[in-house]
Amino acid sequence: MPVIDELTRSLGDAVLTGSRIAERHRSDASLTGRHLPKAVIRPRDVAEVAAALKICNDHRQSVVPQGGMTGLAGGANPGVRDIVISLERLSGIEEIDAAAGTITVLAGTPLEVAQRAAEDAGYLLPIDLGARGSCQVGGNLATNAGGIRVIGHGVARDNLLGLEVVLADGTVLSSLNKMVKNNTGYDLRQFFIGSEGTLGIITRAVLRLRPLPAGRLTALCALDAYPGVVDLLKRAQKALSGVSAFEAMWESYFRFNCEAEGQHFFETPPAFAVILEQDIRGHDGEGEEFEAFLGQALQDGLIADALIAQSEKESRAFWRVREGHAMDRLPSLVNLDISLPIGEIGRFADECGEALSARVPIAHVSFFGHVGDSNLHIAFSLPGTNDETLHEVDAIVYTLVGRYRGSISAEHGIGVLKRDFLDRSRSPAELEVMRRIKKALDPNGILNPGKVLG
Amino acid sequence: MPVIDELTRSLGDAVLTGSRIAERHRSDASLTGRHLPKAVIRPRDVAEVAAALKICNDHRQSVVPQGGMTGLAGGANPGVRDIVISLERLSGIEEIDAAAGTITVLAGTPLEVAQRAAEDAGYLLPIDLGARGSCQVGGNLATNAGGIRVIGHGVARDNLLGLEVVLADGTVLSSLNKMVKNNTGYDLRQFFIGSEGTLGIITRAVLRLRPLPAGRLTALCALDAYPGVVDLLKRAQKALSGVSAFEAMWESYFRFNCEAEGQHFFETPPAFAVILEQDIRGHDGEGEEFEAFLGQALQDGLIADALIAQSEKESRAFWRVREGHAMDRLPSLVNLDISLPIGEIGRFADECGEALSARVPIAHVSFFGHVGDSNLHIAFSLPGTNDETLHEVDAIVYTLVGRYRGSISAEHGIGVLKRDFLDRSRSPAELEVMRRIKKALDPNGILNPGKVLG
Repeated sequence: MPVIDELTRSLGDAVLTGSRIAERHRSDASLTGRHLPKAVIRPRDVAEVAAALKICNDHRQSVVPQGGMTGLAGGANPGVRDIVISLERLSGIEEIDAAAGTITVLAGTPLEVAQRAAEDAGYLLPIDLGARGSCQVGGNLATNAGGIRVIGHGVARDNLLGLEVVLADGTVLSSLNKMVKNNTGYDLRQFFIGSEGTLGIITRAVLRLRPLPAGRLTALCALDAYPGVVDLLKRAQKALSGVSAFEAMWESYFRFNCEAEGQHFFETPPAFAVILEQDIRGHDGEGEEFEAFLGQALQDGLIADALIAQSEKESRAFWRVREGHAMDRLPSLVNLDISLPIGEIGRFADECGEALSARVPIAHVSFFGHVGDSNLHIAFSLPGTNDETLHEVDAIVYTLVGRYRGSISAEHGIGVLKRDFLDRSRSPAELEVMRRIKKALDPNGILNPGKVLG
Repeated sequence: MPVIDELTRSLGDAVLTGSRIAERHRSDASLTGRHLPKAVIRPRDVAEVAAALKICNDHRQSVVPQGGMTGLAGGANPGVRDIVISLERLSGIEEIDAAAGTITVLAGTPLEVAQRAAEDAGYLLPIDLGARGSCQVGGNLATNAGGIRVIGHGVARDNLLGLEVVLADGTVLSSLNKMVKNNTGYDLRQFFIGSEGTLGIITRAVLRLRPLPAGRLTALCALDAYPGVVDLLKRAQKALSGVSAFEAMWESYFRFNCEAEGQHFFETPPAFAVILEQDIRGHDGEGEEFEAFLGQALQDGLIADALIAQSEKESRAFWRVREGHAMDRLPSLVNLDISLPIGEIGRFADECGEALSARVPIAHVSFFGHVGDSNLHIAFSLPGTNDETLHEVDAIVYTLVGRYRGSISAEHGIGVLKRDFLDRSRSPAELEVMRRIKKALDPNGILNPGKVLG
């Protein structure tokens, strides 16, 4: 194949084909796809990314960028005619600027490596998610990752200051800005965040660092009804500085995972359990304030009960229930990721649960999520599932999401798995503008074709 | 003129020409330009904005969108062949969603009206700048406004959740999202923020609200050298929750404005004066913590002196010096707005002051700014100035900014006044991508032509 020949001439053993392609390049964590791509390129520097893209663009060769392969929407899965560009060798911390409060990293750097480097320098890199050990910073940005700390410091986009991207034609677009304020024309960085590799390949980033908190206070609260969850959130954000997590679990999710973890936190499983966390600065009296806040909420009848973690171990026990790893063992687990206006989430969950139960033989339907960020996850077991029932489930949920003016993807992105439902959250005018942007930045359509847009 | 005839047939008395055009439509606060446009359209609703744009686009008629006309870069100034679309009648609060923590406003709503509505509902709308009484929310977003509260809650972009924009061809692009997380394809909202009316006309926005602080603590600190300013910033952000302002004044700026205001804060004018503010939650002991923080900084020799405002009146006195209205009375005041990596600002100011003094007969050259946001302002009197000397000053400063990898506009935008210097902060590849985006969204180039891009 001429394109492979030219790539090999230019990039040598950075180009792998056939049996030399490792299994991990076939599919992300959604485990859909599983095709062997035509080739995998593992560039050693940005110039090699640019060279590879230029050759592919000249040959009208489709390219699928890959990071840590932890995505859940099939966004990094290649087809048999695609060439993969894996960023895994473009890894490393290039600079920590303590005065500016920034860290500059190569795109293939695992998130956890960047987090640790920041901590070693006395800073917090607030982008954080369960896959931190294997996901890569470039992928976090390409998918605008959310995770468990968004309520404190925002999504990936909110923590980005500078970006370097290679465009489809091999042009290196460098905007390695370190400033919080920079109004010099269109903010090109924004175009690539959340574009899932369809507009360019991210090669470097400058991320914003925050002061490392002195510690963290964690409570597990029991509530009777969803409106109380919203009230607790609003009160906490008003009364406490540095609310760094607000995670809600509906009764069935909480009960199932408490049983699986052998935990028995409350006399009777509450209708809602909430993990509330606050980052502290190390002043006297912060623990007492946190306790007083919860005491007042109890006294006012806003919460039915509350436990404050007295140790790191107790805090971890709360979080293990929230992480719900026991659910992974359920047969044919389906895990959906949506967002809705915060006040609507309770009503939506009721309606969605009923709609699902009425139409498909689901078990253990559970709601949980980063309610403080308007993000709801829905997990359930769908034994004997097939593509048709999965599609039916998606259609039920996403159509209802559309009716609530919610989003069919809060943090997982669109990839291929949600592509056909994008019109539930986006108008024809919005989709048309997205297509125009795609055309402007990747006129030959070589970058991650078929992902995000049909 | 056929285009005026068609606009008048469609929009009636929303279309003004000749002597019916008010003076305010000729120029923004930069007071450059001052041309009488061909017509001014004052739409009464979004449908009229769409109708006007469709007609103008069909006639290849250039359109200049106008908000509160408080810009400083000439971005809203029309030429004699342009038609102005003023958003001033598209004003009003449409909804406050307390659970979601959002306010939905029409683009022509004055910022202060939106701020007050938020406060009445118990929330803070953190976008804030001196022009709050006359600037409009749509203009704040179109220019990605900064201001005095960025260190706490970010620039305008960071406070935006949903946006409605009318494209050049009259298409209404509605993305009135209320969710913090929403990863459904390209985030189109981002394209329009900071595009200064060159990609679409913003008609509605959903802004994010924050809890209203219980109060604010304000200190005025004296420091000997710039590195201490950075240290104080870093320490404050680590030790204090809710740092809501960090403003630095170089000696000549501070001295001039203290004298003008009749204030005498310190025995000898310090090399640097810093206003540090903290939003508080109303707990016991917050005042003591603030005082202890400053006490420790004094003891460690980081600051030479500090005053804590004991009243709203004292706090205002600090701020009046920072606002520096006395400088407005200097002959031919030049006020530049740039940003630089925080650690470089001190060295830059020294070098910039020397370069300016060596080349132009400036007086009262002063540096000040939102150092916590990497934003520096430079103000000086340039008596007997003309376009040529102004251009020389710009060239000296912006070329130096480029050498420091800074930005020639932190918060004022590009407009026309900085357009010819955009290449000091943006690479040819970046400018080329901006042009492609412009072409994709406004193929006939009718929207604010000549602004931002040449």
